[in-house]
Amino acid sequence: MTQLEYALSGIVTKEMRIVAEYEGVDEEFILEGVKKGEIVIPSNINHKNLIPKGIGRGLSTKVNANIGTSDAYPEIEKEIEKLNVAVKAGADAVMDLSTGGDINQSRRKILENSPVPVGTVPMYQAAVESISKYGSIVAMPEEFIFEVIEEQAKDGVDFITVHCGLTFESLKKLKDNGRVMDIVSRGGSFTIAWMLHNDKENPLYKHFDRLLDIAKKYDITLSLGDGLRPGCLEDATDSAQIQELIILGELVKRARKAGVQVMVEGPGHVPIDQIEANVKLQKQLCHNAPFYVLGPIVTDIAPGYDHITSAIGGAIAAASGADFLCYVTPAEHLGLPDKEDVKEGVIAAKIAAHAADIAKGVKGAKEKDLTMARARKALNWDEQIKLSIDPDKAFKYRINKNISTAKTCSMCGKFCAMKIVSEYLGTSAMTC
Amino acid sequence: MTQLEYALSGIVTKEMRIVAEYEGVDEEFILEGVKKGEIVIPSNINHKNLIPKGIGRGLSTKVNANIGTSDAYPEIEKEIEKLNVAVKAGADAVMDLSTGGDINQSRRKILENSPVPVGTVPMYQAAVESISKYGSIVAMPEEFIFEVIEEQAKDGVDFITVHCGLTFESLKKLKDNGRVMDIVSRGGSFTIAWMLHNDKENPLYKHFDRLLDIAKKYDITLSLGDGLRPGCLEDATDSAQIQELIILGELVKRARKAGVQVMVEGPGHVPIDQIEANVKLQKQLCHNAPFYVLGPIVTDIAPGYDHITSAIGGAIAAASGADFLCYVTPAEHLGLPDKEDVKEGVIAAKIAAHAADIAKGVKGAKEKDLTMARARKALNWDEQIKLSIDPDKAFKYRINKNISTAKTCSMCGKFCAMKIVSEYLGTSAMTC
Repeated sequence: MTQLEYALSGIVTKEMRIVAEYEGVDEEFILEGVKKGEIVIPSNINHKNLIPKGIGRGLSTKVNANIGTSDAYPEIEKEIEKLNVAVKAGADAVMDLSTGGDINQSRRKILENSPVPVGTVPMYQAAVESISKYGSIVAMPEEFIFEVIEEQAKDGVDFITVHCGLTFESLKKLKDNGRVMDIVSRGGSFTIAWMLHNDKENPLYKHFDRLLDIAKKYDITLSLGDGLRPGCLEDATDSAQIQELIILGELVKRARKAGVQVMVEGPGHVPIDQIEANVKLQKQLCHNAPFYVLGPIVTDIAPGYDHITSAIGGAIAAASGADFLCYVTPAEHLGLPDKEDVKEGVIAAKIAAHAADIAKGVKGAKEKDLTMARARKALNWDEQIKLSIDPDKAFKYRINKNISTAKTCSMCGKFCAMKIVSEYLGTSAMTC
Repeated sequence: MTQLEYALSGIVTKEMRIVAEYEGVDEEFILEGVKKGEIVIPSNINHKNLIPKGIGRGLSTKVNANIGTSDAYPEIEKEIEKLNVAVKAGADAVMDLSTGGDINQSRRKILENSPVPVGTVPMYQAAVESISKYGSIVAMPEEFIFEVIEEQAKDGVDFITVHCGLTFESLKKLKDNGRVMDIVSRGGSFTIAWMLHNDKENPLYKHFDRLLDIAKKYDITLSLGDGLRPGCLEDATDSAQIQELIILGELVKRARKAGVQVMVEGPGHVPIDQIEANVKLQKQLCHNAPFYVLGPIVTDIAPGYDHITSAIGGAIAAASGADFLCYVTPAEHLGLPDKEDVKEGVIAAKIAAHAADIAKGVKGAKEKDLTMARARKALNWDEQIKLSIDPDKAFKYRINKNISTAKTCSMCGKFCAMKIVSEYLGTSAMTC
């Protein structure tokens, strides 16, 4: 049975208990959330070493890190290093987006080493292997995508991105209205190429029930992908994007009815003033399914800094109700991230998620800041470093910029406001 | 005459013309904005090499970089390097916050080398020099702060932060209601110490007219400082902060009446869900005076990454109507920033400002993103790098992660969505 089916039967699973404990909420709250489909717990029955996490309404905002080989960088070892860096930095999930080297091997190694839920985009493997097996992506038999999904499911993948809403109906909106960047989703582009070449409907839409059967068998959570997500601000919130979202909303209902856990993916590149509307629209059209946003990044002009453009967008999205942030690294739009990029990306997304959790009133969020504020007021540096989102970096800054015995810091030195005010207001027991 | 007085007389100055041209708006628009006090053009009559910038309603959001010596780092040369780095990265203004070494010398060197408006916090110099002259900060004669201001004004400082709203009235709110971090503003802490020790009202409030006389003489723009800005999320938007803001609003009227340009400073540490309210409140209470925010940073727990926490807050603030963002560097809360930190801080704030300008509909903002989107769609890498907010960094990423002849990038390689979709939709003339 899936977590959703257990919830519908009123059974609190081990996974629900772990999630409840982690979030500091009642088991009943998790049970109700899963039952309504407002919370998902991606946890494939075959992912043995998984520590499950919950994603959805009322829970802390989660962060995903994309890793995986590419044609130019096929080494699995590097991706395992990135996995470890991502988890250490606080990633709540990873996606293996491998398209280079031995894809099965990459995925299995990542699953074996990952304590966090692992997602994939099965269309990547299907497309890449179609080239060697059938000569091209477009020559892929419909059967093959389902074979790949089944194989990945058996391995223990916890959630899969499936671009089921990319249909001729949504594609028509794209063609009718035009776009600056058309389609920037890789899975979306493979799907479109296949559809146009074969003049056939997207198999993941047409045979959605078959997908549901596999998902149900292994309790894979479907992450309904937005193949038509905007690739630049100019294309944001257009008819193609929203048409696809409408279809995804319909599929959410079908998935839930089948007892399959489901969440919905969102943009992408979105101007600040459209982010809240995008979140509210998704929540409404998709019946409060958890919303997994890819960024969003809030300007197109900052390659090298897209961990920052997406931290801005992600914070606003999560504060507006998005539940799951896909990180963006400084390497986005320029190349495959290395492990330093992965770390920067995870930390930036964690900052966005945490800042949003304070705004959303998530349990325990603002208390962390209060503890830090007290350590700061007391000029307790050891405590400040310990409470930092990245203690290693905070420590490096502290020792490089200050003499070790300094009570204050080198920005204000003896003119530290904390110190002066404490002396005059007598509000702290601190002595300098 | 000040820019405000010229505007009130209906005269378009050279400074207004330069600002109008830079912003791509009519001179009349600038004239009207300055006349109403909704736009300021900080431009001391003695700052000879200044290229003036406008700050306020309808204009692009501006970014300030704080530089200046400290006790631990008194070398002026390093600060001139930081000035150059900041201006190259796109800072629209700098503040010289020197408190170490020869403060007059620092300021004069910075003014001499700065094409952008230079601000200071005169209380810093007054306090630091009071220690050598009078034995302590609290022993400072009232006269001395005005002498320092006059001297800085003569040198050509374009805007000064003056914590005039930190009065016994606002301090009472702090004492009555308590705070986790009391006062974190350096100028605020000096002022409070002086007030409590001498049991006398803040001289910058009591003798505000004298301040106005100096400001008027040199056309210094007053930046009414928020000495009671919150130093942690828990203290945000409390009665002390708002009491001070009410007083600042009253002083805005008095400054305008005297023909003195004035803007108002704001927080600080603010949770995401309180930022818009803070901006609207300032605009209302301060009669639409330009709003200069210090961040705001949206979580206390990310020392080492406060350029990111403040990019999130700054973007939301500016999109809500704030006009001027004071950068925050990764070194904030840990030590004095070095030139790398300065660059990171300026770029992060520029990203926030630009993303907000798109949301605010500032002229020319979204067009930059559209041009980038077109270059991306065409896989034109030279153009993408040229259009980047930091071409050096984008170029480094590109060459380090890709072979030089690659048309696509190493993230997707031959599976590039741009490439595949262009082939199938026939929307681009690109050939691979």
